[in-house]
Amino acid sequence: MALIVAKFGGTSVADTERIEAAAAKVMREVKAGHKVVVVVSAMSGVTNQLVGHCDAISKVYDLREYDVVVSSGEQATAGLMAMALQEVGVQARSWLGWQIPIHTNDMHGKARVIDVDADELHKRLDAGEVIVVPGFQGVTKENRIATLGRGGSDTTAVALAAALAADRCDIYTDVNGVYTADPRIVEKAQKIDKVSYEEMMELASLGTKVLQIRSVEIAMNKEVPVQVLSSFEDTIGSNLPGTLVTREEDIMEKQTVSGVACSRDDAKITVLDVPDRPGLAAKLFTPLADAAINIDMIVQNVSSDGQGTDMTFTVSRGESTRALEVIGNLEEFKDASLLTADNVAKISVVGIGMVSHHGVASKMFATLAEKGINIQVISTSEIKISVLVDEEYAELAVRALHEAYGLSQEAA
Amino acid sequence: MALIVAKFGGTSVADTERIEAAAAKVMREVKAGHKVVVVVSAMSGVTNQLVGHCDAISKVYDLREYDVVVSSGEQATAGLMAMALQEVGVQARSWLGWQIPIHTNDMHGKARVIDVDADELHKRLDAGEVIVVPGFQGVTKENRIATLGRGGSDTTAVALAAALAADRCDIYTDVNGVYTADPRIVEKAQKIDKVSYEEMMELASLGTKVLQIRSVEIAMNKEVPVQVLSSFEDTIGSNLPGTLVTREEDIMEKQTVSGVACSRDDAKITVLDVPDRPGLAAKLFTPLADAAINIDMIVQNVSSDGQGTDMTFTVSRGESTRALEVIGNLEEFKDASLLTADNVAKISVVGIGMVSHHGVASKMFATLAEKGINIQVISTSEIKISVLVDEEYAELAVRALHEAYGLSQEAA
Repeated sequence: MALIVAKFGGTSVADTERIEAAAAKVMREVKAGHKVVVVVSAMSGVTNQLVGHCDAISKVYDLREYDVVVSSGEQATAGLMAMALQEVGVQARSWLGWQIPIHTNDMHGKARVIDVDADELHKRLDAGEVIVVPGFQGVTKENRIATLGRGGSDTTAVALAAALAADRCDIYTDVNGVYTADPRIVEKAQKIDKVSYEEMMELASLGTKVLQIRSVEIAMNKEVPVQVLSSFEDTIGSNLPGTLVTREEDIMEKQTVSGVACSRDDAKITVLDVPDRPGLAAKLFTPLADAAINIDMIVQNVSSDGQGTDMTFTVSRGESTRALEVIGNLEEFKDASLLTADNVAKISVVGIGMVSHHGVASKMFATLAEKGINIQVISTSEIKISVLVDEEYAELAVRALHEAYGLSQEAA
Repeated sequence: MALIVAKFGGTSVADTERIEAAAAKVMREVKAGHKVVVVVSAMSGVTNQLVGHCDAISKVYDLREYDVVVSSGEQATAGLMAMALQEVGVQARSWLGWQIPIHTNDMHGKARVIDVDADELHKRLDAGEVIVVPGFQGVTKENRIATLGRGGSDTTAVALAAALAADRCDIYTDVNGVYTADPRIVEKAQKIDKVSYEEMMELASLGTKVLQIRSVEIAMNKEVPVQVLSSFEDTIGSNLPGTLVTREEDIMEKQTVSGVACSRDDAKITVLDVPDRPGLAAKLFTPLADAAINIDMIVQNVSSDGQGTDMTFTVSRGESTRALEVIGNLEEFKDASLLTADNVAKISVVGIGMVSHHGVASKMFATLAEKGINIQVISTSEIKISVLVDEEYAELAVRALHEAYGLSQEAA
């Protein structure tokens, strides 16, 4: 008998029929003897509609009120899910964020879970009750609703799993797991059975949008095994049909490279012909950090005329305008020319096996060179190598690398 | 400077533009120096959609979960209204039922307000803040959301006005007041400037659906002046453009008859040929009361063959099937024939002046007789006379009575 947190995303609770299908899966887990906590998203489209109402009323709305508006979507699904469970004979009730309570800080719109009061939930679970929780929301110490940011229902699920010391957190979604590459790009992409938290962190931040990155962070810190699986297939989480995100130690067969990710969320900014003096990078990047702009990849070159240096870096596309403004206001860079480009893609190979294998990077560079793809910027961590390339080569690069690292599925 | 509770119904917050229009009215009250508490309904259509989801999932759903689902509609409007007020420069925040808290009993789906914690709200109002409250909901002592029944936002508004000792409760709706008759039936119907709580109770229960009857009850008990007015006209509550529901003592000019109401919510049931013995009525009506079926009008006749008696009474149409079942199961009435009719309308004349005037009833009967309208059942109270007639005569009856009691507007 296990304690499972099962989270159903927007497409998995799209309408009342999908809610009933999700309830049927939960019932099968309960019949198999498991204790279940269900976390639900808003029905598909509802959150966008509510956000649309907010946008229509104000361009700079009060995020505390935004949270009141958008959290209503998950609340409705929670009540409906409890009803659907009762309808199939499962004892269930909804528990809203403020009822449990799930305590968050007061960063409305993107709050962080501080702690979860688990005592009463344990009592209810022990009494055979299924706990239904609306995702994405908690309550601040001022007793106001705070939401956890888009995709925050994953975080609710993992935070609950951690607080309850659950055996597993199942994330039901519209794909049946994490793949070695986006199957829409690489036909031969394979589902990965197990992936480490560290790899999943890289994959989540690099464009494999199956899990909110914050939820992987919590799962890693609290060592909660998380499974990504499909709510559209005829199986339940306890049969482990999806991809299990778990501790590196629990993964027997370590692949050098687990997957190839592709992200189009970056913009490239180049500051041309700046005087090559010590402390230059700090003078550029400290003000950007102060403005809460995340810098991802950085490369510094001698400039073409040899008189100074060029500095190239990437920021997320949504923040590029703001980054240019910040730089434009810096005394040090007032004479520098700025180039910016949105037509770039970041291609990354990720794998915990990389730590102990040489030649991963050189194979990447050779493969791309062979296809005539120019690398604009490179960044590396212990378990990933990312390169920035012209966006139009993105799919070609992903397919070539997927083949080169031997990830492609054998023809049956 | 007055303290006003302003409630905006579903059509008055139908979309974000209507919410902005409502916010503009509140702003005008604030600029005029008044303290304002705003109560909002769900945006039109939202509650029906949410109830539809519940119905799709279960025929006999858990009302506690129903409350979680449907209360989300008003919650969203409250956040949007607070945003809209801030947008026009008014300091405002939303206060959900559980945040205030508005305590209710645990009759989920049709809970009653027990009390409202007003201290913090007074502090905020004194500090110049507008309080925005989602109507229709409170919290039980088990810390669960409870809703007050359809139209419950009126009750929230009046209960808040009572708890805060407000000077007035303005109910903004899609009509500009209470009329002497339904203007869709009687062209010459006049808006009533002032009406007593007692009359409004009768009118609310008799088919003039501008106020939830429970809200009038609370207003009467707590002596809260309530104004019904239009959110679609260019005026604000403080100019008293609508109908004021207030104490009889505050109404100078008392009309004998204030209005003519028409209701099509009743079904007539006749139990034929029952033995004429003492205690018969009790044997029939006690089991019905036990089944929570409200009996409205009752008449008992000698039956046509003179051997027994016929008993005729009305129940609300929604409960007629259940009433027939209850009677069918009674030993005493197992041989009785049952007749039931839905094609009836209840026509009522209402007025506090009736108490001291004779001839009101005889004028009603004479007027209907003159038009050849047969009266099936009669019931009276101190301030109203109701008759049941064939439904097809309903409009004719209302128009004739409206004229007979001198309520019709003079041609300009």
